[in-house]
Formats: sequence, structure tokens, C-alpha cells
Amino acid sequence: MADLLSITFAALADPTRRAILARLTHGPATINELAEPFDMTLPSVSRHVKVLEEAGLVSKAREAQFRSCRLETLPLEAADSWLAEYRQFFSERFDRLEEQIKAMMAERAKDNPKQGEG
Amino acid sequence: MADLLSITFAALADPTRRAILARLTHGPATINELAEPFDMTLPSVSRHVKVLEEAGLVSKAREAQFRSCRLETLPLEAADSWLAEYRQFFSERFDRLEEQIKAMMAERAKDNPKQGEG
Repeated sequence: MADLLSITFAALADPTRRAILARLTHGPATINELAEPFDMTLPSVSRHVKVLEEAGLVSKAREAQFRSCRLETLPLEAADSWLAEYRQFFSERFDRLEEQIKAMMAERAKDNPKQGEG
Repeated sequence: MADLLSITFAALADPTRRAILARLTHGPATINELAEPFDMTLPSVSRHVKVLEEAGLVSKAREAQFRSCRLETLPLEAADSWLAEYRQFFSERFDRLEEQIKAMMAERAKDNPKQGEG
């Protein structure tokens, strides 16, 4: 059986499912409402919602006679915690890039000494 | 063809691949070095590295006679940016939880008025 973080990332590895989650940030929605912006059959949308539900990213609740879907963020928090470990390397990458740009500019200034004076 | 963010999330949806990335945060490593902590054949580890490479999460460079793998964080930054949109909902969830706990405690205090005095 796959671990929870793997199930979360696998559920997020689809643009339609990410769009469904984005829609649910505006509030709960029925499958019909979720299907509206997509050129997809209801069963297709249902299948995507089921994957999100199995990953704990969506829960279903009965409201009046409709079943509405809502966003559950706990798995996203776990994914965010995992990514947090890598955030320090993002800035290091930019630092390296900055050094390369400075070195390029220094090299250029050396080749064209007049440009620095103009 | 899948979009880059989907490819990234799919690559992250495996505990071995995440462990390989974690190892690479300590510096570049050869396939042999990456394979060490796993009960896996070299071809299996190579296949996982290939998935990471195709997702742009790992790059290979020739060092002396070895090819070493290094971590590339650009796809992780994109995943982090996507998750950032959901971070506001994490705190909301905790706020709701706090309200529920407070309501539960108030209910309990009402049922057992003496507990608050002891």
C-alpha cells in the first residue's frame, strides 16, 4: 500500500484534479457544479473527485438533497511540510545564479572597458 | 503530453524517489552511492533516477570517470508556488478546530460545573 504522501502527490499529478481543488477554495460544490468548466462527462469528473477523496483532499457531505464536495487541506499541509525541507536550496540556487551573472558582467566589463565609463 | 507540474508531482509520488532527493540534499552522488541505503538492484534505482531526471529534479554530470547526480530544485519551487495558494486555508482549518475544542470544553464545563471550581 502506498504511503499517504505518495497518494497525495499522485492525486495532485493531474491538471483537472488541481483545477477541482482550486474551485473548492471558493466553497463547497456539487459534482455538477465542478463539471461545468470542463469539457468532460460527469462520470469522468466523478472519477477525478474519487481520487481526490481517496487522498483525503476532498470530503463529501449531504446538503439538502445534494451531496457537495469540500476541500480538505490536511494532505496539502503534509506535502507543504515535505517541501519545506527543500526551501533553503531555492535561495542557494538564486545565489549561484547571481554569482554567475556578476561573473559574466565582470567579464564583459573587462572586454569592453569603455562601457562602464559611458 | 503532461504539464510540468503534473510530471513533478508524479515524480514525487514515490517514497524511494523522495529518499533519493533527500540524499542529494547532502551533495552529488553516483547511482552506486544512491543505491546503498536501498534493498534494490542498480537498474531499479537507475529507473527511479531516470524518472527524477525526466522531471528535471535531478541532473547528471560527468566527474572524473563517474557520472554523478545532483539535485535540481526548480520543479520543487513550482510545486511550492502551487501549494502557497492553499496555505491560507491551513490556518483557517486550525481556527475551526480551535473553535470546536472551545465549544466542547464549554459544553463539558456546563455538564460538570464543579470541575471548573476544583
